[in-house]
Amino acid sequence: MKQNLYDQQLQEHWNRIEQALPEYLPTGKDSLSAAMRYACEAGGKRIRPVLTLEFCRLCGGDPAAALPFACAVEMLHSYSLVHDDLPCMDDSLLRRGKPSAHAAFGEAAALLAGDALLTAAFETIAGAEMEPAFVAGASLTLARAAGAGGMVGGQMLDLESEGKAIDLDTLEELQRGKTGALLTAACQLGCLAAGVTDVRLEAAARFGSELGLSFQMVDDILDITSDRETLGKPTGSDQANEKATYVTLLGVEETRRRAASHTEEAEAALRTFGEEAKTLCRLAQALLQRER
Amino acid sequence: MKQNLYDQQLQEHWNRIEQALPEYLPTGKDSLSAAMRYACEAGGKRIRPVLTLEFCRLCGGDPAAALPFACAVEMLHSYSLVHDDLPCMDDSLLRRGKPSAHAAFGEAAALLAGDALLTAAFETIAGAEMEPAFVAGASLTLARAAGAGGMVGGQMLDLESEGKAIDLDTLEELQRGKTGALLTAACQLGCLAAGVTDVRLEAAARFGSELGLSFQMVDDILDITSDRETLGKPTGSDQANEKATYVTLLGVEETRRRAASHTEEAEAALRTFGEEAKTLCRLAQALLQRER
Repeated sequence: MKQNLYDQQLQEHWNRIEQALPEYLPTGKDSLSAAMRYACEAGGKRIRPVLTLEFCRLCGGDPAAALPFACAVEMLHSYSLVHDDLPCMDDSLLRRGKPSAHAAFGEAAALLAGDALLTAAFETIAGAEMEPAFVAGASLTLARAAGAGGMVGGQMLDLESEGKAIDLDTLEELQRGKTGALLTAACQLGCLAAGVTDVRLEAAARFGSELGLSFQMVDDILDITSDRETLGKPTGSDQANEKATYVTLLGVEETRRRAASHTEEAEAALRTFGEEAKTLCRLAQALLQRER
Repeated sequence: MKQNLYDQQLQEHWNRIEQALPEYLPTGKDSLSAAMRYACEAGGKRIRPVLTLEFCRLCGGDPAAALPFACAVEMLHSYSLVHDDLPCMDDSLLRRGKPSAHAAFGEAAALLAGDALLTAAFETIAGAEMEPAFVAGASLTLARAAGAGGMVGGQMLDLESEGKAIDLDTLEELQRGKTGALLTAACQLGCLAAGVTDVRLEAAARFGSELGLSFQMVDDILDITSDRETLGKPTGSDQANEKATYVTLLGVEETRRRAASHTEEAEAALRTFGEEAKTLCRLAQALLQRER
């Protein structure tokens, strides 16, 4: 799939991440280490860390220097999937077509592996060889995006909205937290890795936020229009049908129109980066057009 | 209980923490915010954050400046209790004589509140108004202590040792991770808040590590010799009787002797701080002599 999404530039980022990520994970044979590695295993799109490296490059930095931040973002994303799949949450036995972490390692090990991955994300940022001010800034940015005011808050809203008739505003607030906050932080961390805190940081945040909304809308469309193997969603669960989505609230046509509009907004946010941003514009288009 | 443990100096730290901690927590009426506050509610000994403030003072710093670090340590400790109590872990419905977080808010909210508290700990450190190098150092120290190589690793070992005959070395490794690592980090973060990274940082770590071992040994003794309301342990669970403890491996007398010896080591580590350290020596003695 990555071959369809990524041009050569982004594919290089992807290769770098696949190589670096295991180096930040524990190597032990114990089940905690094994569960952590399993949760971060190869094969994903790695969209968030690819964005981190590309924004670092766009800001004139060396993408290699952004690897600790990029891998931290991916670990944080992976922890969220592990905890999301637990029986008390989505209760999903499958993830990306393989047994979910708790199906493979047991519930306690999965809980602890998620905790350890979340912790390892901040350890990886704090250990980055970089100006301490940017390390502290990256840690603050990621924590705000990941916590009660961001991703975890969105997950809580999501849980509480199950089986309820929610309106579009609530759905958008939920998705901005659940999906958007971490995508936004991923983009910002790329700028911070390049030592950039000016208007480009704000532009990166806007790109991530708009891309997140578009991404979720396309996901909602694909959930009902394709028989794809679901990615990042419980498989074989009835919940997906009970939950409000952009499609249940707006219909397929209007959702598709809005997804395109958010993609346009995302591209518009990149203007400050000039011609160099065309790689990311192509990625945004590819994500909009994706069929699974 | 804190009145018995703490002299005026430490009691002042305790008061400061009780006042500051809620300011770092979300104030919303939603159940995630409520569960986070519930997990950090007043009434605990707050030993870890008290150590942070006192080591800051010992290093010549203003204890008030160490409050973000101290509160971060307490949030991290609180998250660990919330996740420890979950059904897939110790399955404990009581904590400090009150319903545990999942008993009060449901399992999903407790899981997410724990995740959010862990994240908030790193947010609070990263947001501290302090030299960025010490912020990054504190974040790295706390993450290492809390993650797979520290607390979470110890919890995993603990789980895996259930119902097994483990030896003293394994028990000590387990406890150094589960209890010792965070106590050690709490002491180190006080030094870092005062901008101290010299031999005193090492002394603080040794104090925390020895105090942690002594603390756990006394806990193990109290678990069988008193009918106290258990603190930080599942209440009414059968597991405590199945698990290897210092007492089951060494007997009460030898455990008591070793606890006293580790307390002596802890006090010895403080020599570099001179007369000013007598407050902490008294605390170490009070923890050794405690009866619940």
